[in-house]
Formats: sequence, C-alpha cells, structure tokens
Amino acid sequence: MTKVAIIGASGYTGVELARILCNHPHISLTTVTSRQHEGQTLGRVFPNLIKKVDLVCENLSPEQLSSRADLFFTAVPHKTAMDIVPTLLTEGKKVIDLSADFRIRDVTVYEKWYQKHTAQQILAEAVYGLPELYREEIKSSRLIANPGCYPTSIILGLAPLLKAGVIDPQSIIADSKSGTSGAGRSAQVGTLFCEVADGFRAYKVAAHRHTPEIEQEINRLGRCNVNISFTPHLLPISRGILSTVYAQLTDRIETAKIKNLYDEMYNDEYFIRVLPEDSFPATQYVRGSNYCDIGFKIDPRTGRIIIMSAIDNIVKGAAGQAVQNMNLMCGFPETAGLEGAPFFP
Amino acid sequence: MTKVAIIGASGYTGVELARILCNHPHISLTTVTSRQHEGQTLGRVFPNLIKKVDLVCENLSPEQLSSRADLFFTAVPHKTAMDIVPTLLTEGKKVIDLSADFRIRDVTVYEKWYQKHTAQQILAEAVYGLPELYREEIKSSRLIANPGCYPTSIILGLAPLLKAGVIDPQSIIADSKSGTSGAGRSAQVGTLFCEVADGFRAYKVAAHRHTPEIEQEINRLGRCNVNISFTPHLLPISRGILSTVYAQLTDRIETAKIKNLYDEMYNDEYFIRVLPEDSFPATQYVRGSNYCDIGFKIDPRTGRIIIMSAIDNIVKGAAGQAVQNMNLMCGFPETAGLEGAPFFP
Amino acid sequence: MTKVAIIGASGYTGVELARILCNHPHISLTTVTSRQHEGQTLGRVFPNLIKKVDLVCENLSPEQLSSRADLFFTAVPHKTAMDIVPTLLTEGKKVIDLSADFRIRDVTVYEKWYQKHTAQQILAEAVYGLPELYREEIKSSRLIANPGCYPTSIILGLAPLLKAGVIDPQSIIADSKSGTSGAGRSAQVGTLFCEVADGFRAYKVAAHRHTPEIEQEINRLGRCNVNISFTPHLLPISRGILSTVYAQLTDRIETAKIKNLYDEMYNDEYFIRVLPEDSFPATQYVRGSNYCDIGFKIDPRTGRIIIMSAIDNIVKGAAGQAVQNMNLMCGFPETAGLEGAPFFP
Amino acid sequence: MTKVAIIGASGYTGVELARILCNHPHISLTTVTSRQHEGQTLGRVFPNLIKKVDLVCENLSPEQLSSRADLFFTAVPHKTAMDIVPTLLTEGKKVIDLSADFRIRDVTVYEKWYQKHTAQQILAEAVYGLPELYREEIKSSRLIANPGCYPTSIILGLAPLLKAGVIDPQSIIADSKSGTSGAGRSAQVGTLFCEVADGFRAYKVAAHRHTPEIEQEINRLGRCNVNISFTPHLLPISRGILSTVYAQLTDRIETAKIKNLYDEMYNDEYFIRVLPEDSFPATQYVRGSNYCDIGFKIDPRTGRIIIMSAIDNIVKGAAGQAVQNMNLMCGFPETAGLEGAPFFP
Repeated sequence: MTKVAIIGASGYTGVELARILCNHPHISLTTVTSRQHEGQTLGRVFPNLIKKVDLVCENLSPEQLSSRADLFFTAVPHKTAMDIVPTLLTEGKKVIDLSADFRIRDVTVYEKWYQKHTAQQILAEAVYGLPELYREEIKSSRLIANPGCYPTSIILGLAPLLKAGVIDPQSIIADSKSGTSGAGRSAQVGTLFCEVADGFRAYKVAAHRHTPEIEQEINRLGRCNVNISFTPHLLPISRGILSTVYAQLTDRIETAKIKNLYDEMYNDEYFIRVLPEDSFPATQYVRGSNYCDIGFKIDPRTGRIIIMSAIDNIVKGAAGQAVQNMNLMCGFPETAGLEGAPFFP
Repeated sequence: MTKVAIIGASGYTGVELARILCNHPHISLTTVTSRQHEGQTLGRVFPNLIKKVDLVCENLSPEQLSSRADLFFTAVPHKTAMDIVPTLLTEGKKVIDLSADFRIRDVTVYEKWYQKHTAQQILAEAVYGLPELYREEIKSSRLIANPGCYPTSIILGLAPLLKAGVIDPQSIIADSKSGTSGAGRSAQVGTLFCEVADGFRAYKVAAHRHTPEIEQEINRLGRCNVNISFTPHLLPISRGILSTVYAQLTDRIETAKIKNLYDEMYNDEYFIRVLPEDSFPATQYVRGSNYCDIGFKIDPRTGRIIIMSAIDNIVKGAAGQAVQNMNLMCGFPETAGLEGAPFFP
Repeated sequence: MTKVAIIGASGYTGVELARILCNHPHISLTTVTSRQHEGQTLGRVFPNLIKKVDLVCENLSPEQLSSRADLFFTAVPHKTAMDIVPTLLTEGKKVIDLSADFRIRDVTVYEKWYQKHTAQQILAEAVYGLPELYREEIKSSRLIANPGCYPTSIILGLAPLLKAGVIDPQSIIADSKSGTSGAGRSAQVGTLFCEVADGFRAYKVAAHRHTPEIEQEINRLGRCNVNISFTPHLLPISRGILSTVYAQLTDRIETAKIKNLYDEMYNDEYFIRVLPEDSFPATQYVRGSNYCDIGFKIDPRTGRIIIMSAIDNIVKGAAGQAVQNMNLMCGFPETAGLEGAPFFP
Repeated sequence: MTKVAIIGASGYTGVELARILCNHPHISLTTVTSRQHEGQTLGRVFPNLIKKVDLVCENLSPEQLSSRADLFFTAVPHKTAMDIVPTLLTEGKKVIDLSADFRIRDVTVYEKWYQKHTAQQILAEAVYGLPELYREEIKSSRLIANPGCYPTSIILGLAPLLKAGVIDPQSIIADSKSGTSGAGRSAQVGTLFCEVADGFRAYKVAAHRHTPEIEQEINRLGRCNVNISFTPHLLPISRGILSTVYAQLTDRIETAKIKNLYDEMYNDEYFIRVLPEDSFPATQYVRGSNYCDIGFKIDPRTGRIIIMSAIDNIVKGAAGQAVQNMNLMCGFPETAGLEGAPFFP
C-alpha cells in the first residue's frame, strides 16, 4: 500500500480528498494536517467522515511530514505551497500540489498575477496535471501542478477545436459559473449563506488569476499567443462549474464534423462524456463525480460555436483530478477510487 | 380610481401583478381571471395574498371582461394574447400585454420565431414598453407590448453604448442567467425542485425566442442590422436575471468616459442604478424591486467591455415594468406602487 | 416628521429596518451607526439600499447620538444594549431595543440565561413589544423590549389557547425552524453557504436563550408556572420561521370551537392571519411581510393539538415588529410602512 | 453474478438504486423498466448515469420480467406493487418492495390508511426490511417490505430506548423534516422549484400514512399499544430527513446511561453512527450515504429526552437500505456497494 498524506485537510478540497481516498483500494491515508484544527479528529471537523477516517489533524513541518508518506497532496493556499513542496521533493517524495504555485511555466507571468516565486528551481519539472492532455508526462513526474477548477472546465471544452484549428483563438470568451465551495472554507461575510443564497453575481471581472493559466494552455493547444476573456460568477450551489465558451468558427463547418473532433480526442477518456447533439451539460449530472460533461451548439446566424462544459469543481476541478494524477504517477488503474456515478438528485 | 384587471392571474407574473397592484394608490383591482382556478379566491391559489386581495378568480370572455375595467394586463401565453387583445381595444380599453405577441414589429420575424400572427391590424400601434427608451410613445399609447425579461436586462445594459457608437454591434454576446420563475408555474418535471436545486445549465442555446426581440432593439439603437449571440441559463433561484454581455470596443476608451455615457442616459431614471467603478450588480440586490442595476468593466487586454445587468425578472422583467407602463399611460407618477426597496437578504 | 435612528445598522435586522423605514410616511431616518463600516454609505454595505438610503454609517457615543433623533432602534447584541439604552432614556428619547436585555422581567432569570444585568433601574418600565398582547402598554411606554423571533411565532400561536385554558401548559413542545438570517451577519464558518445549503440540523437543543422568554409569556397567559420544550433548527433559507407546537388538549373539543378562539382574539389584528381548516402556514407566504400566519390541527387519536405559526423572522420577528411598536408609541397608524404584501415566489 | 432488475426506474428511488447497483461488486443489473420512458436509455432520462448504466427502459409484464433476474426491486407506487409482486414470488424470485404494500402486518390497519389489500396471501411472509431490527429474518426471506423513509429515521432513533423501557411510549412526538425528493418525480405544481425553494411548511398533519408503520414498530419494541404524534415537513433540499423526537423519560436517568443503551445496540452496526454528547446530527453529513446518524439530549427541566436522527431519505430511507437488504438475502457482505462516505459539502 502506498502511504499518502493530505497537507491542509480542513478546507473543502481537503475533505473531498479524504472522502475519495478513504475508499481507495491501493493506498493508505496515514496523515492529515491542519493548523487550525490540530489535535481534533478529522471526523470532528467534518462529521461526514466519522467512522470513515479516524485520523487526528496534526501540525507538522515539511521535515516531519516526509517520513509519514510516499506521496503528498498539498491542499494549501498558493505561496504556502512554495514553502513546503521543495523539502518534500528533496526527501524523495511525490507531490501533487493543488495550489497555483507550479501551474504557470513562465515565472514572469506567475509573478505578475500572483507574487514572487520562491521555488523556481523545481518549477521546470512540474507537470500540468490534466491527464487528458499530459498523461504520459504525469506518469513519470514527481511533481504535479493540479489544474485550477475553471481552467479544467474551459480547456477540456476547447482542446479538440484548438488542436483542429477550427476556431479563432482570439475570439474566445469564457463565461464561467462556479459553486460556492470554490471560494473556500474561511469565515468571510461574502460567502455566508444569506449573502449567496437566492442570488447570483460576477466577480473579479477581467481580473481573475485563472486567466493566465487558461491562456497558457489555449496558446499551447492552438499554437498561438492570444488573450482571452474570462468572467467567473458565483452560483448559489455548493458544487459544480459550468463554463459557457464562445468562439468564432474559422469556416462553415457541420455539427457532425465538430462532434467527430470531440469523439476522436475523448472516446477513450473515461472521465469525459461528450453529449449527443442538442444535449447540454448540467452541473447536477456530474455532482460528486470526476466526470467532465461537454456539449456544443453551432449558431449559423453568427458563425459562432457555443461550448458548454460541466464539472464538479471539487472533484474533477480539484480532489478527483488529483487522485487521477496519483493513480497515473503510481501505476494504479487511472479510475481507481473514482468510479462512483454522479448522484442525482 | 382607475379600474384594472389581470387576465391570467394564476402564473408567477399574475401573482406579482396582484402583489404590486393591491397597494397601488391610484387604481382599484376589480377582476382577476384564471381558467384553472375559476371560483377560487386568489388568496387560496396564492396564500401570500390572503387579506390583501379578496377577489375570486373568474373565467370570462373578452366581451364580458371589457365592462370590468379601464385597463387590462394580459398575462397569458403568446397566441392567447392575440385572441383577447383586439376585442379589448375595440371596446376602448387600454391594454398592457405581457406576452410576446406585440413585441416584434416585423411580422415575418414574429412568424419565423413564433407562429402565425392573427392580430396584425393592431400590431402597428403597439409600443414596446421599455420606458427608458420609449417613454413618450408609451404615454400616448393604448397598447403596450411589455418587454421580455431577458431583453429588458440586455437592452438597458447596452443602450448608452450603442447610441454612442463605442461598441461593435456585430460582436455582442449576451450570456444571461435567469431564476426559475421565468419558466412559469405549469407542472413540468424539468422545473421540479429536485431537478433545478443545487444545479445549473444552459437551455435553448442559440434558439431562444427572445433573440429577435433583443436584436430588434439593438439594431434600432445602433442603427445597424446584426445577429447577436444570446444564451439563457437556468439558475437555482426563484427571482432574478443577470446578463453578462460582451462587446468589442471600437476604440480605446477610458472607464470614466463610458461611465459618463451611462450617467447621461440614466441619471434621471429612477429605476436604473449605474454602479460605481469595480462594483458589479447581483440579483440579490434588486430582489422584489423594479430596479435595473448596471455595472461594467473594460478589459484592455482584449479590447472588450463586459457589461453586467441585474433585474428581478418578475418585477422589472415583467409585472413591475408593466405597472410602470400603466403609470405612464394613465398619467400617474411613474414610480407609484413601485417605490419599495429591494429586500436583502 | 419624527426623527429616527438605527444603532447597529450593519446586521440583517439593521438593513431590514432601513428597508422598511426608507418608505415610512411619518418618519425621517436621520442616522445609522456601525463601528465596522464607519464612513461608508449604507448603500455600499448593502447595495440593495443604493438610491433609497443615502446615509453614511457613523460611530457615535450614546451622548452624541441623543441629539440626532427622537426615537432609536438599538439593533445591537445583548449586553451592548444595556450600555446604550439608559443614556438615551435619560436624554428623554424613546427606545425600541431589539436585543434580549429588557425582555425578561425577572432579573435572576435573565442573569441565569444571559449575564449580569447592568441596567436594572430601567428594567421595570420596559414593555414587552408584542402588540397583539400589550398594545395599550406599548402606546404609553418609552422603552420597548422587542420580542425574540422564535418567541413571537410561538406565543402568538399559543395565546388564544392558553387564555381559554383548553391546553395543558406543562405539555407544550415547540419545535421551531428558522432561516439563517437569524444567525446574524458575522463571519463564521458555521453559517457559510456550503455549511448550511442543502442541509438541516437542530442546535442549542434544550439550551436556547429564547426559552425563558417563551416561558415568561406562556406562564403569564396560562396563569401557570411551567417549563416547556423548545428546539430550534437551522433552515437552508434566508428568511422565515415556522414553529410547530404540540400541546395536550384538556378536553375533547371541536375544531370549530378552537377556530373561534383564534378568531375572537385575532379577527381585528391586521398582522395575524388565521388560516382556514386544513390549511397550514408556510414561510414562503409571509416572506418580506409583517404577517404571522397560524394554522392548527386537532389529532383525536392522541388528544393533542398541533399549532403551526409562520413569520418572517426579520420582519414580524424583528424589524417589522419594531416598526409596528414605533407606530404605536408615536401615534401613527399601526400599519404604516408595513402594508406591503408578502412576495411569492 | 446475481441478476437484478429495477421495476420502476424513472423515479428518484429508481435512479438511486441504479447509481448504487452500477458499481456493486456482486450483482449484474440486467433490466430497468419504465412505462413513461419505454425505449429510452436510462442515461437519457437521468444523464448522471451516462456511461454508467447502458440499459434501455422497458415496459414488461410481471411474467415477462421473471426470466430477466433473480432478484427484483419494485420501486412502484403502492397498489401497483400488489399487482406485480405475487407473480414474481410464484416464479421463485426474490423481491424487495419499496412501496408500502407489505409493511403493515395488520391488514385492517393497512386498509384503513391505504386501500383494499389484494395480495393478502403473501403478506405474512413479508419481512420488514430494517436490518438493525430484523437481520436474521431478512436473510431467510424472499419478500422484503422495505421501510418508509420517515419510519426508518424515527424507529432507529427510538429503538434502544423503547427496548430498555426508559421512555413513556404514549408521550412520543416525532417532528420530521424531509427533502423534496421524498415527494417523488411526478410533475406537480406543489413541488416546483419556486414553490419549495426558500420556504418551509408542514403537510398531512396528523394524517400521514407513515403513522401506522411507525406505531407498528414502536408498539412491538415497547411492548405497548399507543398512538403517537407524527408531523412531516417539506425542506427546501433534495435529500435528507431529520427527525426530532420527543419523549417523556420514565425516570431520572443520566446521559451516560442513555448513551450506553445506544452503544450496546448499535456498536456493531456499520450504518449507525451514535454521535458524542452534545453533537447533533445534520442531514448534510449523511448525504449520499447509507448512514443513520443519531444524537440526543436530556432536558432535566422538563424530564424529556430529545432524540435527533438523520438519514439520506433516498439512501438509508429507500434505495440504500434496499441494497443492504439484498446483500443480506443473497449472502453478500452487508456493506457491499454501500461503503461510500457521505459527501460534504
């Protein structure tokens, strides 16, 4: 059994990692850390885990941590990740980092949108953990930069079209809507029930930090160098992202041909479900699962294609994708621990 | 006191009309109709109205109706409106029609998106009831085509920019999200609580009937002839629409100058609130009110402007706007019955 | 115009007071205070109030405050109220206190459930502000203890039965469910959207501080001295309380006779709606209004009566009732500012 | 592999059965039926099941069905179940019936609350499928009457206390709150999103058909013959039941002793989690799982005990418990297919 630890287990990504890992057939969860809840059982912090995870939250240094496991999930804020990950790698461990710290390859871009990068020496070996794009690199890596939730939904929706060159990358507009778990579990007025329920709004318009991450992958897939529009919104639901993406088609093209592009790229992908014509994805149909559901519509009146992509933001957008990456890194079946069907209603 | 009737009082628009009208200082609500609930008090159908509206739902022909009131709100499905409205006009009554039947000036467009138009003789005199654009025409009209909810939010958000010619109309993309009351009160599996709650999806992608209505007004304001992209989504909330609208700026332009365009057009508009820079509207801040809140952001990286516009879909998007139109038609203060502040939370 | 101030305007009770008062025909809102938001407009804190309330939040001592208004709403936490109210009274002002500090007549009971009482000298003149029970006393008082939200719903539901002696007070069990606004607007993990949404739980079981307040009024109405069971629960809604109250009937009694008891006591009460037989109240039908809806059912199998009582916890359970009290104290029509119908959906 | 069929797969219980069964290690789901959706894939009816269940909905007679599987889940309305089950038993099949038709042992009671019983010949062999009470009988039965959702939560919460005789059965009051999935998936105005969201109400007060089922088991456990009070309420959530149950203690008793009674009965029960003192269950911590979480509080002021019991109404309250019963009937590990942790948030 591979020994696994979760660093930063008291957020929504942490509890979801624990939920998935506690039933994973090939690993043993040995350690969970939380400064805030040090000394408490994880089941006390998250009563859904009572009788499923019996670990006590600890507060350990990277050095102390390294003996506890073979592979670490770092589910801590960016900046904190840069402080922890280098030590773990030095100790010969595998790391899947769920922060943004190792996602941006160009350090000047990272420093423009985030802050100074203090672990540049290991940045080059980080692999962007989107298995549908980087499966082979992930298998042989020891440091995975687990993608952001919004980028996962947008990039998977666009990849086949960008590779085939059928859309104009310059024209891409991604209008994304996320459940509130994406805002984290810290006590803030803005995410109180009464502030979010029965409401809807955009936030960080033309200013969200996932923008350069999305552009990095779009430009690589489309062999271009564009800026795109990305607008995040806050949904009054706990889990789920739906991205509605608009792009100008470079030519008249039939629906069937677009469908073929998706099928060719994704037919063998367990976690991608390309929907039939005139079916559109909904967050409630991927809830609790690692699926990404994709639908599209060509609008001949405007020459645009509208792509819709739905994921559960804390599964395929965070914890589930991290476990998928772990499976690849460790040689387990890629779907191990992730076969559960979405729950509806 | 002007006598007023609601034809089709058992839908969400009907109950909202009754809620507003029961406290209106200048009118008397004399009649409410409902085939389905004939013989029941409106308070039995909608217990929120107990002790506020004591009328019994009736099932009357247009001829029988005409003696009951001076002004009629027809809150019935399209097609049905065409059957009722001509008689009421012939009898010398004022009509505010909340269906789509008199919104589209070009009958061929109407017939392409809806069905055969059977009341073309009165179409020409119908005024599109968006007071911020057609105030004077409304005052002297006897037939108002009350705008659709989505078009209201999108057109108000775009009007100052289109008039000033600072955006390229061809580039307009409107990504709109509506509360579930917009889907009506008929018993359907698709709008059951368990199908909608904790979820989110797009619907009628590149195919929604509000598209030609939006285009009609955009083309008039922008003196152009374009098709736009419009994608409606279903929010797990009861009330509220947020439209996020994207357009290419024709030139580099400063935020302050755009703000000026909004202020010039809307400074004297009671029901429009242009938000300060970097404030974005939210549906929960217009809930239950006739306000339209508008915010925007220029993205210099892409040359696009993002406009956000929030309304309560059954107030400014339906019943409230209808009462605003009535006030104009009858010479009442435009805000009569509509001064209530939005309720939050 | 009577000048009115809200002390503590940045909570959910404060914003609701401002929403109601900004349209009140007989008062002028002159001052709003908030330590946390000092210097900000109230519309910035609560964007629903933009263009409706143009005041800036101030941070003033009780002495500074007293010149600002004739009547004060103190919407501050208990303990803080005791520090402010005596000064305001000394300055000759009227006060409606929305905290618990002046609700409990027996100081030893107060000190057992809350803390030391430091304003005992004015406790005796405080009137419990439930107009349906204490209308005359309220009219001539200068200090109103505005009732708690749960007590309002439970006491109004039980009063006619207790007065008539048809139930055994000892047997009373009140199972109450409240929307999350009742938990206030402070940043806490427990009331984050993701913790509350799509969930339900009891809290402070057999330990909630509203218990002695409920018992005080029950014992007075029933001329008895009992302890009752009261269990609060947290609903995933913003507004609304439903209390389901169980009591043993002292005798076989017919539904019509019970209905008569309610009608006799409440027929002339504008804000009480006794529902017809086999109709039960729902929070969604009192939303945003000052109504208390009451229904009941006799269960001959068990000899119990089940009473259900619904209010909007921040209207009839807080701000609305406070305004009703102000109207009585100032000689305004009791319903002034409170005639709006509940909004549904 | 045991072959299994779901009769009535298009309701919320049906889709949940399919969700659980599609990953069950010891069975093969061979057939799903639905009159309404005949000819459609189950994934089309419930897109969460795309790629997980590839069956097409069929419309088959009991005779046609019997060759399809070894064990049948009948997830049809009561009355319909009586028409189907006898044939399946005659054909030598095992049946787990999720309707009410075989839950009530006394046919006169059944006929009083439901309708005429037309399959009395097999009623006697039906075992009430609550494994924590009837495990051995279930193992050897061929017909299981799967318990109702409310009864499951109430009976499991009360069983240890009734067996030990520490409460007065006559005094039991069960105030239960259920998510809307319990109301089924048929198109009805009353369960539309806008009617349920942001609201709360009681329904079928003192008249719900689960009452005799609850009493049957209470009377058996307590060796008594009482009527109890049971009030169901509708929560604005999809999944989850919380029952708050009140009972008079027969004697002064310490919390630790009550805790012991629960631990003795439930310590070896995988699916029961007795919470530590002063912890109370919440529906959001059992969501998607087969757990029943139980907490309690003694109130020395009233001599009552308050018991709270939370389940997911469509898992432990329906589909999950049915699979648990199947596991027992077929000799599989009792937890097979049901080990998934609850998901939160």
